[in-house]
Amino acid sequence: MNVVERLEALRTLGAHERGIDRALLTPPERRARALFASWARASGLHVTQDGVSNLFARRDGTRANAQPILVGSHLDTVPTGGAYDGAYGVAAALCALDVLDVRGVRTAHPIEAVAWAGEEGSRFPLGCLGSSVFAGLNDERTVLEIVGDDGVTLAQALASPEGGLLEGLPMRTGRDVAAYLELHVEQGPVLEDLGLSLGIVTAIAAQRRLRATVTGRSGHAGTVPMAMRADALGAASELVLALERAAREQGDAVATVGRMLVEPNGTNVIPAHVVFSIDIRSPDEAKLDAIEARLTEVIARVRKGRGVEIELEAFERRSSTPMTPALRDAIARAITTQCEAYADVPSGAGHDAMSLGKIAPTAMIFVPSTGGQSHVSEERTADRDLLLGVEALANAIVEVDRVVD
Amino acid sequence: MNVVERLEALRTLGAHERGIDRALLTPPERRARALFASWARASGLHVTQDGVSNLFARRDGTRANAQPILVGSHLDTVPTGGAYDGAYGVAAALCALDVLDVRGVRTAHPIEAVAWAGEEGSRFPLGCLGSSVFAGLNDERTVLEIVGDDGVTLAQALASPEGGLLEGLPMRTGRDVAAYLELHVEQGPVLEDLGLSLGIVTAIAAQRRLRATVTGRSGHAGTVPMAMRADALGAASELVLALERAAREQGDAVATVGRMLVEPNGTNVIPAHVVFSIDIRSPDEAKLDAIEARLTEVIARVRKGRGVEIELEAFERRSSTPMTPALRDAIARAITTQCEAYADVPSGAGHDAMSLGKIAPTAMIFVPSTGGQSHVSEERTADRDLLLGVEALANAIVEVDRVVD
Repeated sequence: MNVVERLEALRTLGAHERGIDRALLTPPERRARALFASWARASGLHVTQDGVSNLFARRDGTRANAQPILVGSHLDTVPTGGAYDGAYGVAAALCALDVLDVRGVRTAHPIEAVAWAGEEGSRFPLGCLGSSVFAGLNDERTVLEIVGDDGVTLAQALASPEGGLLEGLPMRTGRDVAAYLELHVEQGPVLEDLGLSLGIVTAIAAQRRLRATVTGRSGHAGTVPMAMRADALGAASELVLALERAAREQGDAVATVGRMLVEPNGTNVIPAHVVFSIDIRSPDEAKLDAIEARLTEVIARVRKGRGVEIELEAFERRSSTPMTPALRDAIARAITTQCEAYADVPSGAGHDAMSLGKIAPTAMIFVPSTGGQSHVSEERTADRDLLLGVEALANAIVEVDRVVD
Repeated sequence: MNVVERLEALRTLGAHERGIDRALLTPPERRARALFASWARASGLHVTQDGVSNLFARRDGTRANAQPILVGSHLDTVPTGGAYDGAYGVAAALCALDVLDVRGVRTAHPIEAVAWAGEEGSRFPLGCLGSSVFAGLNDERTVLEIVGDDGVTLAQALASPEGGLLEGLPMRTGRDVAAYLELHVEQGPVLEDLGLSLGIVTAIAAQRRLRATVTGRSGHAGTVPMAMRADALGAASELVLALERAAREQGDAVATVGRMLVEPNGTNVIPAHVVFSIDIRSPDEAKLDAIEARLTEVIARVRKGRGVEIELEAFERRSSTPMTPALRDAIARAITTQCEAYADVPSGAGHDAMSLGKIAPTAMIFVPSTGGQSHVSEERTADRDLLLGVEALANAIVEVDRVVD
């Protein structure tokens, strides 16, 4: 089965009118894991799972005691997700191992195709749940107590026969890993815009999330002269534009105000309160510092100029995860051997590679997303690109096998 | 009973935790009308009502066949209204007639204190309902078919014993009126800011209401470079600021974006759609034309610069109602006689005087609103200002009686 056929099979699991809902440890997500296990066994791989439902399918290597190269992504989706985000990297890992078989390639390291549990954080409020536990970034016992949005703990969900751990699988323990490779859809428009089918990720961007609360003074839309107003929405609008300008000026950085709530939100009432989200990302932390500094300056000016109060609350801060140069080079060689072109691109979105990057040499390959769309049912990648991605991943495994210990 | 005592009695009717809810033809609003009628009878006035529950209390004049000078406001409130908007002008009209009695003043014209029905439009979706029917601006039979937010027609509500017309009152017919005076709280901060207790209204501002819909392109907050975005909220922010600037540049005009909805409104999603309300007002229609023209220019620029679509839909257009110069002068003389100062102020809010202004010489007097607040339970006017307003109204009636036919 090629990767297109495998994605067709996976996309039916959790499908509903507005996309795919395959949240961690739900029946459709368990069926996806069961499908992974049956495909892996059909390819002669040794399947294991761990205590948080990460799934592994091992192809042996030739060198005694070599640690495995892990290759994978995740099978869960957001509530109205698409068929490619995560699932592609998992299916492609199995396909790449098939390619090695067909070509009679023996690697020194064992290669394990991996399906990480719960990358999206859409049922249990922890992104990269499985990979972060595997990498030891989160304590397994603490994570098992996390309560999902349905009131069930992770431990209870894992024990459930409908959505929980697969039966009869050996448990994998330890976190031995020589390197990690992840193939993923770009979820953005850059590769499509460049007319390229492959990207090598330079770094997973640092991200900061903040919440701004502007408090002005309400009043009747008809009776308060402009000069006597403290309009919270006017102030917020200045900040939205200042953020946008700051990100543009820095370059290689993005700033987004995605969510905004206006109060009292009446057509004939001057806005008293505006709360909005700020999301800034860049592979370069210094650029985020510069954007935040600019924001602070503008806030001081707007506060003074308009007589409003502005509170800024930082509530998430993720550092940048640079991809390992030796692995990026190995992937570049693999792609060049294929006579394909590629671009070096940053990843603005987070991935399981952030977890693995903390404990092992790590790299990622991107394929284009049609129209840059992701996390929607319209998410798509052309079949040709999907197949090219598998080819690149298989070749990259061979190259990486040579360069890592 | 002075006006402060009357307002204390009225404020209990429809009072709830977050203000006063005294919507047209509800039991508390009927109790307010009954209280008006009993006060009027106690003052020896002749009480009548009309087919839409406008209430009149007549003090006779000395000149045969003179048309009456109407003096009033409304008794209904918004759902979380205050104790002064409308009720003050009605109670003050009765008090002013008492003042004339105490002083032994005889007027040539009959004077009628009026409580107009349903100025707020908060149960039946028509502002200035009673006064517009009285003035013949809306056809009574059509208005009787209007359905309230509880599914009851105006005709049914009028017939209801709980909230409907008062029993045993003679019906007033015709729209004979020599002049109209309305005393009202400012609902804005201008008089308080000037340190004055009285304002003479120059005009009730023209008002235009529009709805802007910005359609951009959604996308992942982390993966779409700034240069490839069509951010609907960035575009909307430019328009908010342009509107604000345009109103400031015109002067004697206000522009408000009070309501804004962002879609999909997710912290990590670039906004695809933003819908917002625009409310612009000025006594001078030319200024509104200039603001709209400026908005149209900016929309063209933003549309082109950002690759977004922007639709502008005008859905309400109210022309300016200038107050009658001879009546403004009469009020000015009355206030000067009192040794009080006043300011000429526009009214940004609408009032029943808009209806009467279409058929008779009309003028309004304002008293300050503490903190400029209105349509909230905190709405307040100092007792001293309330009493000064009644005095000014009584004196103005005498002056107006001399200048109108």
